[in-house]
Amino acid sequence: MNWSPLDAQFMAQAIQLAAKGRYTTTPNPNVGCVIVKQDKVVGQGYHHQAGGPHAEVMALRQAGEQSRGATCYVTLEPCSHFGRTPPCAQALIDAGVTKVVMAMQDPNPAVAGSGAQMLQAAGIEVVSGLMADAARALNPGFLSRMERGRPLVRLKLAASLDGKTALANGKSQWITSVEARADVQHFRALSCAVLSTAETVLQDQARLTLRAEQANHPISPMQDGEWRQPVRVILDARQRLTGDEPLFQQAGDVLLVYPAGSAATAPDHAKTCYAELDSDGYFDLMAVFAALKDCAFNSLWVEAGARLAGSLLQAGLVDELVLYQAATLLGHHSRSLVDVPELTDLSQAIELSWQDIRHVGPDLRLIARVHTQEK
Amino acid sequence: MNWSPLDAQFMAQAIQLAAKGRYTTTPNPNVGCVIVKQDKVVGQGYHHQAGGPHAEVMALRQAGEQSRGATCYVTLEPCSHFGRTPPCAQALIDAGVTKVVMAMQDPNPAVAGSGAQMLQAAGIEVVSGLMADAARALNPGFLSRMERGRPLVRLKLAASLDGKTALANGKSQWITSVEARADVQHFRALSCAVLSTAETVLQDQARLTLRAEQANHPISPMQDGEWRQPVRVILDARQRLTGDEPLFQQAGDVLLVYPAGSAATAPDHAKTCYAELDSDGYFDLMAVFAALKDCAFNSLWVEAGARLAGSLLQAGLVDELVLYQAATLLGHHSRSLVDVPELTDLSQAIELSWQDIRHVGPDLRLIARVHTQEK
Repeated sequence: MNWSPLDAQFMAQAIQLAAKGRYTTTPNPNVGCVIVKQDKVVGQGYHHQAGGPHAEVMALRQAGEQSRGATCYVTLEPCSHFGRTPPCAQALIDAGVTKVVMAMQDPNPAVAGSGAQMLQAAGIEVVSGLMADAARALNPGFLSRMERGRPLVRLKLAASLDGKTALANGKSQWITSVEARADVQHFRALSCAVLSTAETVLQDQARLTLRAEQANHPISPMQDGEWRQPVRVILDARQRLTGDEPLFQQAGDVLLVYPAGSAATAPDHAKTCYAELDSDGYFDLMAVFAALKDCAFNSLWVEAGARLAGSLLQAGLVDELVLYQAATLLGHHSRSLVDVPELTDLSQAIELSWQDIRHVGPDLRLIARVHTQEK
Repeated sequence: MNWSPLDAQFMAQAIQLAAKGRYTTTPNPNVGCVIVKQDKVVGQGYHHQAGGPHAEVMALRQAGEQSRGATCYVTLEPCSHFGRTPPCAQALIDAGVTKVVMAMQDPNPAVAGSGAQMLQAAGIEVVSGLMADAARALNPGFLSRMERGRPLVRLKLAASLDGKTALANGKSQWITSVEARADVQHFRALSCAVLSTAETVLQDQARLTLRAEQANHPISPMQDGEWRQPVRVILDARQRLTGDEPLFQQAGDVLLVYPAGSAATAPDHAKTCYAELDSDGYFDLMAVFAALKDCAFNSLWVEAGARLAGSLLQAGLVDELVLYQAATLLGHHSRSLVDVPELTDLSQAIELSWQDIRHVGPDLRLIARVHTQEK
């Protein structure tokens, strides 16, 4: 397939549009669309939130009558099924578009290709694959859920330069800076859910909500003007949370994970799901992830202690590690970053590859990809 | 003082020349010199090694008769005393130079300003301070010795991303990469001495020599074609080294630090000095540094274990930390990077500031300045 510079320009514009939905579309993917007639953009749109119009519909509305005979550039294959909105492929057909350039197929194996087929059956020329990598990068979480059946998992860690999170006596507040904490708001805003533990909630009086006004760049709100809150998923194996904690006094859903078979009543307003414990009394993480499947989370942001961090890593469930590193040393008596069973050989080490290294205020932020062995 | 662009250009050239001596001039400073007549460079030189000609003499030789009426740009105040070579100030006077532009005064409090005075007494115009910061940056070690009475100390550390240096069972070889080890050669080459312990020498069969052929960029040799070897200073509180270790089978001096009052004989070819032990049987590091004063080390490069690293840091004796960080996690059972007494409050943390962050092969190299409180 040969792409012209104009093709690339219009698709790049569609990708930039798609990214505007990154804080709001969950569980839907980010999609952007540009309608072009005689090398001019006559309509553009992006998907903003589930239940709202899809990108193609937004762009067609703007283009109006000019859609007839136009080319549609869209970052994802148009849908062919009735969901909360009618199929976009049908809308494109009805509008008289004559060519559709899409960056990538729908990754959902059940529907992949059917949107394109519907268009082609109506006599529309369909080409696919323009800027596919950039289009994939728009939706790492959605693709993870569709292609692997589990959310993209980012693990947040914060430590001193010698990998310590707290003193032996437990003192740990604000090892990293206000700028690092502002940066965390952005990741919470990007994520469908925040995963933590009752221990962290109790110890840190953690709320784990998005405080958009503290973020280091603007977070776009939902249509109603409110920010979308990630669901706060809290592992509470011993059912210690009472509902009186600050966690519950905030906007946004709380989903408590309880041991399978437990009969306890959850605090008001909290939802519950259930998973098995292992022989040590901790949750079997595979069971937890299975229990979360119905939630359709594209991405999970984990803020917890060294034990859950280590267990997720050991289970091969972490995709990215986001480490805020403070320019301090706390010494060997202090608490370590990740708890994993003792290694006997260096070949057992958890291997990473650097993705992004930058200064965030006085701290460093190191993003590394985990070399996951799916289990 | 107003400097012209030409002044800056000539001084910049002198600074670049000076840097050529960075692997070889110890214990002397790096100095570069440019002789300029009618806005043209007629002579240039730099100091290469102790006992050899100073930068001014090299430059004057090249300029020959053109020195008469010329301006001399030099990165450090010309010397006024007879050392291993005659005073450069006199050489400049004899050559008929009419103006000397120097970047900075001699930092040695005993002689500071006397070179300039000698020149001025001979009717030469002397101006000082052009690009002084860059000139100071040429000689951090020499300035440390002159101004603070102790060498610049760089502490090398290597660890996983969670700050671990070895597994609990001791396995540690090559946590960091061949590229990181090549980078270490450069720091050994820059340093007057490498400081380590008998423990490291025995455990790792460490040689601690410069292997210039393994370095990641060219290391300039001494006049005889050999590379200058840093003196290897080994703390041997229990006099465990026998002389049979690989350390002793290499070119370059070994200086063993023994407990004060000990009567043991050192291995052949090793030099010795003495310092007190503390109540735990480890060396009093202040006493060690006092004992090393006569060696006129400008800079020390420390490669040792977590205990010496922690003790040096606690004693406020480390200026820079050079941490090679591998993209792996080893978990909380593994060995920590620095051993310091247990902290009870975060205000006791050792504070650093980032100097330079870069990728070195698959590892990161983090250079941080230690906020030293002189004790």
